[in-house]
Amino acid sequence: MTEHSNLQRPSPAAVAETIAALGALFGDRLQTGRALREQHAHTTTWLAPQLPDAVIYPASTEEVQQIVQVCAAHAVPVIGFGAGTSLEGHVNAPFGGISVDFRDMAAILDVHAEDLDCRVQPGVTRKQLNQHLRDTGLFFPVDPGADASLGGMASTRASGTNAVRYGTMKDLVLGLTAVLPDGQIVTTARRARKSSAGYDLTRLMVGAEGTLGLITELTLRLHGIPEAISSAVCSFSSVQDVCDAVIATTQMGIPVARMEFLDALTVRAVNGYSKLDLPEMPLLLLEFHGSEASVAEQAAAFGEIAEEFGATGFRWTTDAEERGRLWQARHDAYWATHSLRPGLQSMSTDVCVPVSALASCVTQARERAESLGMVAPMLGHVGDGNFHILLQIDKDDAEEVAQAQAFMSWLSELAISLDGTCTGEHGIGQGKAKYLASELGDPAVAMMRAIKRAVDPKGIMNPGKIFDVIAADAD
Amino acid sequence: MTEHSNLQRPSPAAVAETIAALGALFGDRLQTGRALREQHAHTTTWLAPQLPDAVIYPASTEEVQQIVQVCAAHAVPVIGFGAGTSLEGHVNAPFGGISVDFRDMAAILDVHAEDLDCRVQPGVTRKQLNQHLRDTGLFFPVDPGADASLGGMASTRASGTNAVRYGTMKDLVLGLTAVLPDGQIVTTARRARKSSAGYDLTRLMVGAEGTLGLITELTLRLHGIPEAISSAVCSFSSVQDVCDAVIATTQMGIPVARMEFLDALTVRAVNGYSKLDLPEMPLLLLEFHGSEASVAEQAAAFGEIAEEFGATGFRWTTDAEERGRLWQARHDAYWATHSLRPGLQSMSTDVCVPVSALASCVTQARERAESLGMVAPMLGHVGDGNFHILLQIDKDDAEEVAQAQAFMSWLSELAISLDGTCTGEHGIGQGKAKYLASELGDPAVAMMRAIKRAVDPKGIMNPGKIFDVIAADAD
Repeated sequence: MTEHSNLQRPSPAAVAETIAALGALFGDRLQTGRALREQHAHTTTWLAPQLPDAVIYPASTEEVQQIVQVCAAHAVPVIGFGAGTSLEGHVNAPFGGISVDFRDMAAILDVHAEDLDCRVQPGVTRKQLNQHLRDTGLFFPVDPGADASLGGMASTRASGTNAVRYGTMKDLVLGLTAVLPDGQIVTTARRARKSSAGYDLTRLMVGAEGTLGLITELTLRLHGIPEAISSAVCSFSSVQDVCDAVIATTQMGIPVARMEFLDALTVRAVNGYSKLDLPEMPLLLLEFHGSEASVAEQAAAFGEIAEEFGATGFRWTTDAEERGRLWQARHDAYWATHSLRPGLQSMSTDVCVPVSALASCVTQARERAESLGMVAPMLGHVGDGNFHILLQIDKDDAEEVAQAQAFMSWLSELAISLDGTCTGEHGIGQGKAKYLASELGDPAVAMMRAIKRAVDPKGIMNPGKIFDVIAADAD
Repeated sequence: MTEHSNLQRPSPAAVAETIAALGALFGDRLQTGRALREQHAHTTTWLAPQLPDAVIYPASTEEVQQIVQVCAAHAVPVIGFGAGTSLEGHVNAPFGGISVDFRDMAAILDVHAEDLDCRVQPGVTRKQLNQHLRDTGLFFPVDPGADASLGGMASTRASGTNAVRYGTMKDLVLGLTAVLPDGQIVTTARRARKSSAGYDLTRLMVGAEGTLGLITELTLRLHGIPEAISSAVCSFSSVQDVCDAVIATTQMGIPVARMEFLDALTVRAVNGYSKLDLPEMPLLLLEFHGSEASVAEQAAAFGEIAEEFGATGFRWTTDAEERGRLWQARHDAYWATHSLRPGLQSMSTDVCVPVSALASCVTQARERAESLGMVAPMLGHVGDGNFHILLQIDKDDAEEVAQAQAFMSWLSELAISLDGTCTGEHGIGQGKAKYLASELGDPAVAMMRAIKRAVDPKGIMNPGKIFDVIAADAD
């Protein structure tokens, strides 16, 4: 599984020729300044930045095609760049190459309100799209937290807080247009809500992390903004009780829109940061979407389940302002956890297990983190069995970084041993490539590699991601 | 797009050696009798049956692996067979080969009620699974009408009446195990509800129609049986009104579970067949799932929308017996349409378009069928924009068959011109291979072919399906 075909930095001459050819076509939309290249190689994790040789700003599918054709002719890597919010080194350029920044491809092309879909360019961010949709009564539900670009969200198969109700990017991308490694422009589906026509190229490109081509257009499914929203919170005495309440809620078919868990340490952080006085116990936050009557009924039904599992402090409301207050702990959680070790950095990791195994996974992780003396607040999308640990570490302390890496390795293997995945929504990138074979077995990785070779025989599309071992070859 | 690499019948010697080798391993679970081979090549359409050379009954993934290894060694085709209910010639054997019948792989391996999932062998039918699940309070929603096998449903990316609420096989297969063309056993995912770990091999195998490997195990998502169900019916004066009411219902976010349309001709057929007296106008049937209060509210909310679009005869109920009566027209529709030309055969076709284009598609199809003097009742899953035409023809009349084929070609191209697909749920098989490039373009078909060649270089897996022109090479 450590095969390295096509994994080498192109010659300086090939890079120079590529930059010259692209410069002739794109003028000052091709940039080689170090600061800009650094910005395009930033990672949000322990991975060292690896700079591309240039950054380019196409404005159309045809311009992306031109870029790929030039890069293919010189076997120079092509790395897509959206909002730069990915968490596993997806935009790093271990072999150099051209970072294709979709900043200038951020148009909402059309909205088909009758069909509940829209067509967007990949640089559109989710907040931009929802702002645009506001007057239509529709919204795009996937919410990974950061204001990521939709092209990036598709490429990492992102999800987030309301995936439990509305699905992930795999469910909400109806079709897409992409430039393949040979410069061909492929459209994977038309606009019907479902199709049985041939291989599901849409789902193959979603989550491929830019290793099979560059997405240049997306058709997305939309949902109607719910008539009413209710929010609820309550505390439990154990993670097991949280999970049991979640399981009962799901089995009863209550169509919860959001179901978020904060562990006791995260609650403590939020209490300090946001001046709240929540009990320092596992906290569950819920949101229900529907008609006025339905969201009231859902909240009440959940309240009964919560009581059965010993919940305390159950409150719910449909009032927008009060909903904001109930959910404040969740909204502030990310920054609040930073206050646990002020001035240091947060390293976020992500695993996902069957919900029945979630309590065990969280509890084992908590015990191990504590025994190692690590500051490891945990929170997550508990309805999906997906949770994050925001390790608070000093990235300049090699020992702490090594300990954090070892912990994340242990956690990934734990999730896999519980029949789960090493990443529920962040993707493999560079950071989790070493767990892929452990999770899916060698035949699955070999099948992925065979597809990669068939679609990208020169290996120019985001090399060094998903299956390939990181080859640190920094500028 | 008419490349024929690997498309040839193996030599009689290769077939004989394969049958001998498999016979030694499987004894009388390998059969070569003509009647059985005919039964495994039956098609439910205008396509001529093309017989396999033998039929084999494996009992485990490892036995499927043995079969594939023997066939691969002799470059003999392998064709999966479930319940034989597919509609586009999927189980035909244009180049002969071994039909792998999953009759003896029909076990429900485990049910994880807490995680709302289960693991089954591919020969399990959907009714068998739902019977088994009854006591758990859970059910598997995909309902294509026929009691198809779950392996076959996955392979054709099946859906049906309640896909509008619960999704299609692409949404409800969590992961699968398959034997690849080289005999490797691949598992595509673990049991987490979502994952961002590498290429989505699950979705690649779902809908691949057995051309990339044989599915030998499936992990399926389940749903809680709703606490209450309400059903509703009403008639509209035009298909446009039906579609406008459907669009308004969807935009309002009413979570309809089923939304079925019968055209006036189908209603007439049902009136005659089932002794009903429905107005011979477009009929809409709906089903709502939820709590007692919620299904009442949903039905009432829909009733207001229906009235706005001029519906007549609106009725709804939560009573099980009365629900059966309201939906009788839909349950009897298939056989009722046969009574329009007694003694002849029905040829079913399937297209899917954006809902905003559905009225236009249905109306144009109606006009053309009438101008050609064809008996063409129409019905469908209107919430998805998916509908069927059940052409009543005399399959022994070459002229009628030719006319029906020409009509289905015209319909497929019409759906594509409306930004839809030539098949929403039946699959490509042999019957619709000629529309794939028209629908998705040459680069998409070339990408599919590249994947096919990479995974199945010898071309042994269900050859002559999806992209390849039918090579009639009957026994």
